[in-house]
Amino acid sequence: MDKKNINIGVIGCGRVGSSFIKNFIYKRNIIKEKTGIEINISKVFDKDKEKLSKFEKLIAKSPEEIVLNENIDIVVELIGGIDDAYEFISKAIENKKSVVTANKALISKYGEEIFKKAREKKVYIGFEASVAGAIPIIKSLRESFIGNKITKIVGILNGTTNYILSEMYYKEISFEKALIEAKRLGYAEANPELDISGYDTAHKILILSYISFGHLFSIDKITVEGINNIEPIDINFANQLGYRIKLLGISRKEDNHIEIRVHPTLLPKSHILSLVEGVNNAVYVEGDLIGKSLFYGEGAGGDAAGSSVISDVVEISRKIISKNFIEENFIPKRVLNLKPFEEIETKYYFRFTAIDKPGVLAKISKILGDNNISILSVIQKQDNPKKAVPIIMLTHKAKEKNVIKAINLINKLDVIKNPTVIIRLEQELM
Amino acid sequence: MDKKNINIGVIGCGRVGSSFIKNFIYKRNIIKEKTGIEINISKVFDKDKEKLSKFEKLIAKSPEEIVLNENIDIVVELIGGIDDAYEFISKAIENKKSVVTANKALISKYGEEIFKKAREKKVYIGFEASVAGAIPIIKSLRESFIGNKITKIVGILNGTTNYILSEMYYKEISFEKALIEAKRLGYAEANPELDISGYDTAHKILILSYISFGHLFSIDKITVEGINNIEPIDINFANQLGYRIKLLGISRKEDNHIEIRVHPTLLPKSHILSLVEGVNNAVYVEGDLIGKSLFYGEGAGGDAAGSSVISDVVEISRKIISKNFIEENFIPKRVLNLKPFEEIETKYYFRFTAIDKPGVLAKISKILGDNNISILSVIQKQDNPKKAVPIIMLTHKAKEKNVIKAINLINKLDVIKNPTVIIRLEQELM
Repeated sequence: MDKKNINIGVIGCGRVGSSFIKNFIYKRNIIKEKTGIEINISKVFDKDKEKLSKFEKLIAKSPEEIVLNENIDIVVELIGGIDDAYEFISKAIENKKSVVTANKALISKYGEEIFKKAREKKVYIGFEASVAGAIPIIKSLRESFIGNKITKIVGILNGTTNYILSEMYYKEISFEKALIEAKRLGYAEANPELDISGYDTAHKILILSYISFGHLFSIDKITVEGINNIEPIDINFANQLGYRIKLLGISRKEDNHIEIRVHPTLLPKSHILSLVEGVNNAVYVEGDLIGKSLFYGEGAGGDAAGSSVISDVVEISRKIISKNFIEENFIPKRVLNLKPFEEIETKYYFRFTAIDKPGVLAKISKILGDNNISILSVIQKQDNPKKAVPIIMLTHKAKEKNVIKAINLINKLDVIKNPTVIIRLEQELM
Repeated sequence: MDKKNINIGVIGCGRVGSSFIKNFIYKRNIIKEKTGIEINISKVFDKDKEKLSKFEKLIAKSPEEIVLNENIDIVVELIGGIDDAYEFISKAIENKKSVVTANKALISKYGEEIFKKAREKKVYIGFEASVAGAIPIIKSLRESFIGNKITKIVGILNGTTNYILSEMYYKEISFEKALIEAKRLGYAEANPELDISGYDTAHKILILSYISFGHLFSIDKITVEGINNIEPIDINFANQLGYRIKLLGISRKEDNHIEIRVHPTLLPKSHILSLVEGVNNAVYVEGDLIGKSLFYGEGAGGDAAGSSVISDVVEISRKIISKNFIEENFIPKRVLNLKPFEEIETKYYFRFTAIDKPGVLAKISKILGDNNISILSVIQKQDNPKKAVPIIMLTHKAKEKNVIKAINLINKLDVIKNPTVIIRLEQELM
């Protein structure tokens, strides 16, 4: 008996869910033409009954009606959040259903366990939409780059924060104003905390890091800094010095050590990542055979993520149709040590707020020098000798722990009027 | 009986072939760990016996020993060129072997026929390495973007020419000098004609166009211009005006019309494609769900292409291990009309060489105006009133046929001393 029909159930009809359903129905025929498979959306559920009103005949009364349904082959989970999603996905796998999800929080926390269960039950997990919207980075890392030893992944992985930083740069407005604008346009959620805190980026870099290096680190083990403290003055000074500020997720492997961090970063304007504007995402990957590689595309929006959900659904359908179980390439488990954040070495941008009197620069420089931090360039504004003025410094490579120590000492100087702003700077990412 | 071993035979041990073999042997264990499949290189052939010297036990005496070999599952064809490759691949398919190839000339000519034969024989064809080296553009278009209606593909698809243009820009040297340097570094072949004429780029854009739009056009139907006429003076003027010159392959669909062309193109320096330097490649793709998307990576070099060959070999091995035949997503056949080149509309860069006397600009402008070509900006050098001087013009969008007509008339003016240089300009590609 050759099975040629696949039934899917969708849980969650928010932005991604409703876009996926609409587009999938519209594209069903061309997908059938390309794959020979008839894929039907047979059940749809959302807690919010209003969101279901368009899907009359497809409405499921409960998520269980989908995850326990004998006729459903693939469960598409698009509710986000952790607890409920974990429960539905687990039940779906238990009942031998494959799963497609866009849930980065869930995969970055329970990915290893979910993949293991799926393997045992011989079902498939598609999670392309969980990282970087329409960009096929998961598939590329797992399949296209399978011959490579990946050494570095750097990404602009959150559309909301990238939009805010772009607006702050182009319109010279504050973080708060840019955030209001982002909300108005639907680029930021009512509660944008997960995005602006950097935690959404962290979920995504943890997933990319896991599939590349084989160790899924817990989010509380890595350093995550958001963009809420970025001020227009820093964007402006960075600009004068030839840099843009971007929120990056960085994962880098050296021997058995791995470095994973999320923070705002100065990037040279000539750097390709600094050209990624608005809600777009980009992922840079380095490997031993591919060399340097970059993917750029829409990171937010229902259609972009929906495109990845469609491709996962189609791919898994093709595998289900084939009788033998051929899972995604397995992620071999590796035990890696996370490099302590204090040990990382990078360049730095400092903005000191100091009383403008002779000897201030000497005092600051001495403390930096004592801590092995050497200065690359300085901008000192001398507009108003009575008020505290900004002093901007870029450094050569220095150790984080030395920087923290030095800046703590500098902040205690009586000529320093505000806590010093520290932003890391990456020059040689590509 | 569960087959868990795959044997491959390699024909062609040049740059890509030898890199593939070396890397594949080195990575066999990790690939086995990820896929559960043991893939062996069991035979290797090259016409040049010297290239085989390292592979003692694997040497095949003839290509037939590979393509007719009962124990071989996948034939990796890396000899390039058309006739022999066509013969070996056809025989391999005939004998129920899957094929992996990096041969763009072959696929752009016989792709449709080869894919059809492979389907009939239920074998697989991998050709990721035929376009843009390590960039997984074929897989992304066919699988990741399966839910999309693709509308536009623009690529820097040839590393040699991009290297030459980068050198000409940065070092302000002539095409000839840059070519010598490219040869010295191994970035250009002894006979670089296929690259510099634009025909290599044409093969690749034809393949991308085919898999996106379903019609494989013949290379003699499309307009292909190379970079051999690009002069330092034009690179210099383009630079002054804020542009870079890049060799692009462009394919764009509107209704049932398709536009495919290859030519040097002025791109704004802020355009992401203009940042693609040296032997790197990039492919820009537009689709209804993904929006704007870009892939960047190494386009030349044995390791980059070898990485794509490895991924095709692994993917096909996984499919062979599964008993049912699941081919790559099928490319539905579409009948499209190629837009005549005279009908395309774009912006233009002109360099006139004119005697510098009053009224020259008026004469040129009149002819342009009479042909519906409106001028965006002009640079007129007035260094030497006795000699012919360059006059540079950028236009608004105009029709190619009007441009050709106007320039023919202008070239006949007695104040015009050399044939006018015409380079197309794309402002709104992304």
